Amino acid sequence: MSIVRELAKQAKAASRKLATLETAAKNDALLNVARQLLADRESILRANEIDLAKGKQAGLSPSLLDRLALTAARIEDMVEGIKQVVELADPVGQVMESWSRPNGLTIAKVRVPMGVVGMVYEARPNVTVDTCALCLKAGSAVLLRGSSNALNSNRALVASIKKGLEGTAIPVAAVQFVDTGDREAVDEMLRLNGLLDLVIPRGGAGLIRRVVETATVPVIETGVGNCHVYVDKEADPAMALDIILNAKCQRYGVCNAAETLLVHREIAPSWLPGALQSLRDRGVEVRGCPAVLKIVPEVKLADERDWATEFLAPILAVKIVADLSEALDHIQTYGTGHSECIVTNNQDTAAEFLQQVDAAAVYHNASTRFTDGFQYGFGAEIGISTQKLHARGPMGLRELTSYKYVVRGTGQVRS
Amino acid sequence: MSIVRELAKQAKAASRKLATLETAAKNDALLNVARQLLADRESILRANEIDLAKGKQAGLSPSLLDRLALTAARIEDMVEGIKQVVELADPVGQVMESWSRPNGLTIAKVRVPMGVVGMVYEARPNVTVDTCALCLKAGSAVLLRGSSNALNSNRALVASIKKGLEGTAIPVAAVQFVDTGDREAVDEMLRLNGLLDLVIPRGGAGLIRRVVETATVPVIETGVGNCHVYVDKEADPAMALDIILNAKCQRYGVCNAAETLLVHREIAPSWLPGALQSLRDRGVEVRGCPAVLKIVPEVKLADERDWATEFLAPILAVKIVADLSEALDHIQTYGTGHSECIVTNNQDTAAEFLQQVDAAAVYHNASTRFTDGFQYGFGAEIGISTQKLHARGPMGLRELTSYKYVVRGTGQVRS
Repeated sequence: MSIVRELAKQAKAASRKLATLETAAKNDALLNVARQLLADRESILRANEIDLAKGKQAGLSPSLLDRLALTAARIEDMVEGIKQVVELADPVGQVMESWSRPNGLTIAKVRVPMGVVGMVYEARPNVTVDTCALCLKAGSAVLLRGSSNALNSNRALVASIKKGLEGTAIPVAAVQFVDTGDREAVDEMLRLNGLLDLVIPRGGAGLIRRVVETATVPVIETGVGNCHVYVDKEADPAMALDIILNAKCQRYGVCNAAETLLVHREIAPSWLPGALQSLRDRGVEVRGCPAVLKIVPEVKLADERDWATEFLAPILAVKIVADLSEALDHIQTYGTGHSECIVTNNQDTAAEFLQQVDAAAVYHNASTRFTDGFQYGFGAEIGISTQKLHARGPMGLRELTSYKYVVRGTGQVRS
Repeated sequence: MSIVRELAKQAKAASRKLATLETAAKNDALLNVARQLLADRESILRANEIDLAKGKQAGLSPSLLDRLALTAARIEDMVEGIKQVVELADPVGQVMESWSRPNGLTIAKVRVPMGVVGMVYEARPNVTVDTCALCLKAGSAVLLRGSSNALNSNRALVASIKKGLEGTAIPVAAVQFVDTGDREAVDEMLRLNGLLDLVIPRGGAGLIRRVVETATVPVIETGVGNCHVYVDKEADPAMALDIILNAKCQRYGVCNAAETLLVHREIAPSWLPGALQSLRDRGVEVRGCPAVLKIVPEVKLADERDWATEFLAPILAVKIVADLSEALDHIQTYGTGHSECIVTNNQDTAAEFLQQVDAAAVYHNASTRFTDGFQYGFGAEIGISTQKLHARGPMGLRELTSYKYVVRGTGQVRS
């Protein structure tokens, strides 16, 4: 048997015990993990230094190196994150609904753990800790596959997590780590039907596409966000400016940032010059359609690719549209179903936008940046789903669970 | 562009309009389809005769031919099914939850249609009509791919359904049919990411496996049921007999029928001889473990494969177990996560079984045959999911929907 399959089998076996644990037992174990991570701070940082040195040699970009880097403060943040997860309500065992049938059967729909959750992610070591905390609290074992760029950091983190689980109610085998850099291991992991109940990819568009195309186990597609802000003709101009500045500039490298601004042609002449100036003052490169250039000639001309691109950078595509219908068509054509916003004071226009746009989150007069598990009050987030199956939008603990039907009878048979 | 992709694009475009329809408009359209199917009865039956003749020539089994065959009565049943779907509550637009955030944002989690649902199925023409009724009512367009053995029947049914949609609010293009027998068309359909939101396979284990292994679009795995009845030492003997006879014999070819009987060793000597006699009186072939043969020597010896087989036939594997733990291990090893039953008068034993067994439906003192959308009171069923993602167990209208977050603000931005 291959190593990856063997790890998954161990996780599956552990998941069976983990699924039956009381909340307090899981919380105690997680707090022990938190203590252990603090105790192992030095060795984790040393392991991370090896990854950073290798990454610099390999020519990783400064932003990748920043994501990869651990510090004492970042370890403390991870530990804080675990403590927050401990505080969250346990979804496992919740009765979602229950009813009786005329034949006397009682049926309860009960939340149960997913089983074994696979996580394939890029070089952000904090994902290792976050994933363990969320999955274990939700009663599932994990099979982790991080980037080879973070191999030493992840090894150290996983060793510490496993040490923290020793002597607790959560089996140490509930955390499994694919400790190899080769791609075949991931491909095999993605085809472990019957052992892996779910795989979540976290990373860039390339990683996600590869997981979706390779996997035969169920996948939740996360993260790619080509998000739009549509400024209607009846928008409050100041509010529209606040929202596009926030949606574009508050953070550039995130999936819920705006990438295209759509502006109704009736408000464009008065609103657009000032808005684009504010964006450019903040260092944002604007790429506009021909109609935009007629109003603000110094803007660069956008090409077809710009409408389809998740820039994750200080670049914004801007298009003037004739009406709501054209805005909806544009979003339908280029959007990725993540977060879409309309700014308008017209409630009917807003209602139509909110109904017609097919996305995980639709906003009326608020920034797309709110699509986030913490901002929604879930207290956690394992990713943002852009697919419609199972979970859509920010995924917290509850979205990491499944359910089963518990049916109680007194000897009923089907006639 | 390939034909299949073109069909899916048409379905996707139609799904956008369909998603916004009021319940009454959808119901009117469905009733029109029902009327049209009745009006087209003769041409549908003639088309079906061609399939039946070809099927006989090709040597299809009598049971396959029976599934393929349409009669006036079966068409009336389909029409009746559509009328029942019309009566069901529309899940689309239901607010599942809503809450406010400290910053004044209001968030509503609203049910929305799935979009475009693909159905890949074997030679049962009624699936064509059922799928259309359920998906359209749930606001989704469909892309149908039936068996080549039912090609003429499905063509006639789809033509009638589309004619029924003419002049109604539901776009005719919301129903698309892959009108070809070649396998490449299915493979392509299963990889239409961005156009197809979900594919459901309905058919035997081979079809389902092929869909799961080929698809890159989200799949809901349905149907394979290697179901167990566990008769505990504290079972009521008469109830246990009723339940196994019903679970095994009420219908053989269905996924929720029992395939293996597990019996506690303390009740086996007294209960098993009579139980096996009753089963054999009904024509069931029993395949037992060595311990069973010691009690009932005329039984055939089971081999390893028998524990793993979904017989869908009058065959039952029987194993004597030392205790609940051995029963749970056996189910964990061989079960397919469909429906599992314990018969016992001990509430603690029952509670442990219900919690520990990882299956879509777990039963205490009731037949596994109840795993069914109608029996659960859903009023419909598009399949029984055996995966944990999205929907588990019987899937009705609600399980054909997704959700989105509708967020309303007054200019909020993220700080």
